[in-house]
Amino acid sequence: MLVTLRDAPSDAEIISHQLLIRGGFIRKIAGGIYAYMPLMWLVLKKIISIVEEELNAIGCLQTLLPQLHPAEIWQKSGRWKGYTDGEGIMFHLKDRQGKEFGLGPTHEEIITQIASEIINSYKQLPINIYQIQTKFRDEIRPRFGLMRSREFIMKDAYSFHVNEEDLKSTYNKMNLTYKKIFNRCGLQFVAVDADSGAIGGASSQEFMVTAEAGEDLILRSDDNSYAANQEKAISNPKKANILEVEEPFLLKTPNQKSIEEICLHQKLDATQIIKVLLYLAITEDGIKQPLLISIRGDQELNEVKLLNFLSVNKAKSILDLIPIEMKHLDLEGIENIPFGYIGPDLNDLLLQNAKSWEKNFLRITDKTASNLQTFVCGANKPNEHKVVINWDSIQSNHHIADIRKAKSGDTCIHDKDQRLHECRGIEIGHIFQLGRKYSKMLNATFTTDKGHLEPVWMGCYGIGISRLAQAAVEQNHDKEGIIWPTAIAPFEVIIVVANIKNEDQKNLGENIYQELKQEGIDALLDDRDERAGLKFNDADLIGIPWRIVVGRDANACLVELHNRRTKETTKLKANTAKQTVKEAIKKEKILFAP
Amino acid sequence: MLVTLRDAPSDAEIISHQLLIRGGFIRKIAGGIYAYMPLMWLVLKKIISIVEEELNAIGCLQTLLPQLHPAEIWQKSGRWKGYTDGEGIMFHLKDRQGKEFGLGPTHEEIITQIASEIINSYKQLPINIYQIQTKFRDEIRPRFGLMRSREFIMKDAYSFHVNEEDLKSTYNKMNLTYKKIFNRCGLQFVAVDADSGAIGGASSQEFMVTAEAGEDLILRSDDNSYAANQEKAISNPKKANILEVEEPFLLKTPNQKSIEEICLHQKLDATQIIKVLLYLAITEDGIKQPLLISIRGDQELNEVKLLNFLSVNKAKSILDLIPIEMKHLDLEGIENIPFGYIGPDLNDLLLQNAKSWEKNFLRITDKTASNLQTFVCGANKPNEHKVVINWDSIQSNHHIADIRKAKSGDTCIHDKDQRLHECRGIEIGHIFQLGRKYSKMLNATFTTDKGHLEPVWMGCYGIGISRLAQAAVEQNHDKEGIIWPTAIAPFEVIIVVANIKNEDQKNLGENIYQELKQEGIDALLDDRDERAGLKFNDADLIGIPWRIVVGRDANACLVELHNRRTKETTKLKANTAKQTVKEAIKKEKILFAP
Repeated sequence: MLVTLRDAPSDAEIISHQLLIRGGFIRKIAGGIYAYMPLMWLVLKKIISIVEEELNAIGCLQTLLPQLHPAEIWQKSGRWKGYTDGEGIMFHLKDRQGKEFGLGPTHEEIITQIASEIINSYKQLPINIYQIQTKFRDEIRPRFGLMRSREFIMKDAYSFHVNEEDLKSTYNKMNLTYKKIFNRCGLQFVAVDADSGAIGGASSQEFMVTAEAGEDLILRSDDNSYAANQEKAISNPKKANILEVEEPFLLKTPNQKSIEEICLHQKLDATQIIKVLLYLAITEDGIKQPLLISIRGDQELNEVKLLNFLSVNKAKSILDLIPIEMKHLDLEGIENIPFGYIGPDLNDLLLQNAKSWEKNFLRITDKTASNLQTFVCGANKPNEHKVVINWDSIQSNHHIADIRKAKSGDTCIHDKDQRLHECRGIEIGHIFQLGRKYSKMLNATFTTDKGHLEPVWMGCYGIGISRLAQAAVEQNHDKEGIIWPTAIAPFEVIIVVANIKNEDQKNLGENIYQELKQEGIDALLDDRDERAGLKFNDADLIGIPWRIVVGRDANACLVELHNRRTKETTKLKANTAKQTVKEAIKKEKILFAP
Repeated sequence: MLVTLRDAPSDAEIISHQLLIRGGFIRKIAGGIYAYMPLMWLVLKKIISIVEEELNAIGCLQTLLPQLHPAEIWQKSGRWKGYTDGEGIMFHLKDRQGKEFGLGPTHEEIITQIASEIINSYKQLPINIYQIQTKFRDEIRPRFGLMRSREFIMKDAYSFHVNEEDLKSTYNKMNLTYKKIFNRCGLQFVAVDADSGAIGGASSQEFMVTAEAGEDLILRSDDNSYAANQEKAISNPKKANILEVEEPFLLKTPNQKSIEEICLHQKLDATQIIKVLLYLAITEDGIKQPLLISIRGDQELNEVKLLNFLSVNKAKSILDLIPIEMKHLDLEGIENIPFGYIGPDLNDLLLQNAKSWEKNFLRITDKTASNLQTFVCGANKPNEHKVVINWDSIQSNHHIADIRKAKSGDTCIHDKDQRLHECRGIEIGHIFQLGRKYSKMLNATFTTDKGHLEPVWMGCYGIGISRLAQAAVEQNHDKEGIIWPTAIAPFEVIIVVANIKNEDQKNLGENIYQELKQEGIDALLDDRDERAGLKFNDADLIGIPWRIVVGRDANACLVELHNRRTKETTKLKANTAKQTVKEAIKKEKILFAP
């Protein structure tokens, strides 16, 4: 069943996708839908075993929940519409009786529904339930093989608690367990502070396999004691250059709409200027709120931070967040917005004729801006800026928040001597403190030791099993092919018989194979009647950690032992080769014993 | 997580369904859709391990294929319409780009498509690929819990061969392996000849767990050397009473339309009469063929056998088979069909005015009828029958086939001294020789050793994993609850601490639990603060094979050992109890070592 391909398909954009296809690990059945072939299944099974062992060791209970989710349960949590309408990523269908179902992309609703039925008392808590299962997402643009596919294998766990403290304790335990799991899989990874996204909840952390092709940008401190997804990362901005003026005054700034232009013509530094951005937020109940965002001229807005600020401030979901452009203003009938010259004190009266928008700005000022005492900003009329001496002089009613992007080179909050650096990562795990959002919606309550009825506290914890397998390839390969970490390699050693027509070679190869198997080593025998070179290339491509080549010295019981990662090749007695392989594999296993 | 219920839900019609719900093994999420709770998952996992071990031992390769199936692949095999239109059982949906997908109820299409891409040469054959996966069927009336559910776990395997002989050899190997698997699961079962149904193909065999609530009727010989699903069963009909007449003549039979009435009034035996049935067969291309079926008066028509005869005879699929009634004749404008008095020689001319039907009868005569020399049959006009001396005298152009139902009491073909008996069974496995139906449709060809391009021969092999688990309960229970076979029990032994507030009991219970776990025994400790009686009832209900009760003699290190199946209880030293349990479990494991 070893069917390798010489060429990668044209739609395989990243190396791990190319190698998995070329090595015969996966086959595409439709866009974003793959068959896991026998070699791949061995890899997945090893990852699954590691995950199960580690979760069982801390008392998690395994289940299997349905993949077809009745619409009513998702309607209770309020997520049905968002997940199925328009840009919704949930595949959905009607059964023969006309009932609506979604294909589960995640299981908060189902598990909370079950919890609401089986949990009654604090005596039953905490519990932590998990499953390993194929999930579905109707990605509009599936790509990168198993990285962003429409069918994928997930481990998802859900924990239930009497209070937040107990939730945090399990969350921390899961954090440690995740690190054990990824270590045992032989991966280089970082745990990063993350945004909670559509799942909701307070605190969350992502686990990223570091790899150049990663979709996520990570900021990490020199000492590795801080790491975060850029969406969430915090840092100290660089110090502002103080603007030494004593009186406010106006600046003529013809055609100086950008920060660069003002700096150039006015001999200012970007840290001395406040730039103002207009956005429109649309909330779940359809309200269209214009936003006026102030941020220091050298900083960039972090839209995810802004979104999170808004959903807390408004206490509702934000469906959309868009930069306001001229065309939007025209449609609303709003005039006289001086783009390029807007100040934090732009007058609400300008919104008075708005057709569907709220008639006042929600003003949000990033800390980098609010911390400036003296600064330059737009004067709210074309071709003029102004020098402001004091925030109080221009505005009173604004919210102050951290809505800026942390950047490579910024100093760290935990230690000003540490700086942030960028690297890229592939998300393979995510843990969340969900709080009581779902238990409240789905009425999952318990009786406390004092006899009160309260909603349970929940956590949820995911690992992308199939994605992890591909991330391992993205991190471990060379130009010849994959280099699997031993713990998740489909086989630990491959025995290649160079010339299968030679009886000595054939017999010795088979003996070594049988003996290794008997000792519990995952061995693969390549006894195909093919050229030796082709077999070596295949062995390199599929990435088995050790290779024993039985060639022309077979009659003297000599073989070649080749290490796929280091590329070291040694000529050895067959017995010594077996012993070496066995001991190397055993050592790794002991290192990561659960 | 042990949450048991006192009452079974009202929709649980059979005992196994009731017990699984009451024992907290499964929870209903929607009609025919269940969550497998932690206890159930342990059972499923043990079954899955046994299946994997036995299949791997004979060289099957495990994969995981997609659950979302592109419509195009099913269109190639010609099954898309039948599976999705009208009564079609395939859930189906459109993705966000409007592409159609079905949710896999079976994987012949997908695997044959893959085979067509990866198999090129006879050198790669045979191969046998399997997966264990949730499958979907949109049952119009899901019932009996996991027996007829809409989401269920299947093992499905597909083998590929150079010729029919090799297919048969693998088919036989799978047959033996299936028997090993079901034996290891601790089940009583029969392997029966079966009809191939919608999957198609030549030979097929079902594996049935015997149980009174089984949906299938099985006919089995006294010596157990023959067994078949009633749809497929063959037998010797009882001997006919010879009708001693020498000349043909007419019988006046006013209002004697049924066999019983003629027998009564004419002093005949049912074996001396031929009854004639009219059916209409509708083929896949829309042709409506009237059928004239002749069968001995004491026999019943087997519609499944008739259907199979027709699809071979017509070399196409039969969409529908219905008994012709007056209303059908009226619609077609056909007159003068003398129901109750029809003979095998009913004239084709009667069909001449048919609007949409074929204008001749397809005449099919069961062997019980064709074997009669002298017999009574309808005279093709009201109130008259006739005595026929010789088939040749009335008809020439008819097909002779076995289309009767075998019955309890019939003698066996393989040995006339053996008789058939009825029992009921639950189908848990099915193996098929598919032949080349799918490989031809999906163009899965290989180059033979002589350089010819030929379609591969295929077999397919299913086991209903979740259904097997429930069938085990249907076969193994008493009024207190489930009695799991040890090999698939969620735990092998449960240690019940009678009074958890007693330190001696608590400590001894925990010690026994820890020691058994360390010795590799699946032990469960019930240290809930509940009444002892409630805990005993729960232990009986969830059906753990062994129970060790740590009660008031704990200070003397005495415990009670209880066997769930035999209900024997013995008072023993704790160490002896542990030893007894360990040895009993070990003995079973050795018995069924793979």
